[in-house]
Amino acid sequence: MSIFELDERLARDSELVAVLGLCQLRLLKDGRWPWLMLVPQRNGMTEIFDLQPLDQALLTFETNMVASALKKVTGATKINVAALGNIVRQLHVHIVARFEGDSNWPGPIWGFGQAAPYEQATKQEFITQLVEALSS
Amino acid sequence: MSIFELDERLARDSELVAVLGLCQLRLLKDGRWPWLMLVPQRNGMTEIFDLQPLDQALLTFETNMVASALKKVTGATKINVAALGNIVRQLHVHIVARFEGDSNWPGPIWGFGQAAPYEQATKQEFITQLVEALSS
Repeated sequence: MSIFELDERLARDSELVAVLGLCQLRLLKDGRWPWLMLVPQRNGMTEIFDLQPLDQALLTFETNMVASALKKVTGATKINVAALGNIVRQLHVHIVARFEGDSNWPGPIWGFGQAAPYEQATKQEFITQLVEALSS
Repeated sequence: MSIFELDERLARDSELVAVLGLCQLRLLKDGRWPWLMLVPQRNGMTEIFDLQPLDQALLTFETNMVASALKKVTGATKINVAALGNIVRQLHVHIVARFEGDSNWPGPIWGFGQAAPYEQATKQEFITQLVEALSS
């Protein structure tokens, strides 16, 4: 098995939170929404159905685990889960906490406006709470 | 088990193509993109993680089966898969074929412009090809 290579843009736009069984769990560098991303550590994957069946099941499990933790930590109105990849082709799944009245609500977040930097303490507290929720 | 009740807006905006093991497979009434939707036939579900584990696995299986068939039939550049639900809360998964240069490419399709009616023959041919691809 070859070493996993993360797409350069995904690497630049997000930071590593944890490594799960299949995926890297990453936080987008954009404080407008609590916005996570799962990247299966498999090279050359573009569509979810490109993955082996076991990896498809693992991705589902990890997606739902992270989505559930994100809902618990944020109290979001709705969790948005999406695999788009029109710009970056390396397979990645967005998991975003949405609230009534947030930026572009109820529209989608992708391609909307400019990223807003996180306040460092806010980001660190969010990551700590998320990792705790994932561990419980 | 109670009878499944489809959300009124989902019913109005889409038409039934097939009933799979868990989901209704529906076609959106918008010819701008080949745009399908899976609706798990379970009442009271909002998030994917609300589903029982077996239903989560079935939804993954049906999503990937439909996405793969849609890719095969359309030759799309990229398949977009998303569970958003900011407007309609009944759990539903969008599966959309995207092409370079299509409406709002590479941005997301949701909330963009106005639906364009299908030409009847085009729609019927698409459904026929899709159902064939799902059966093979």
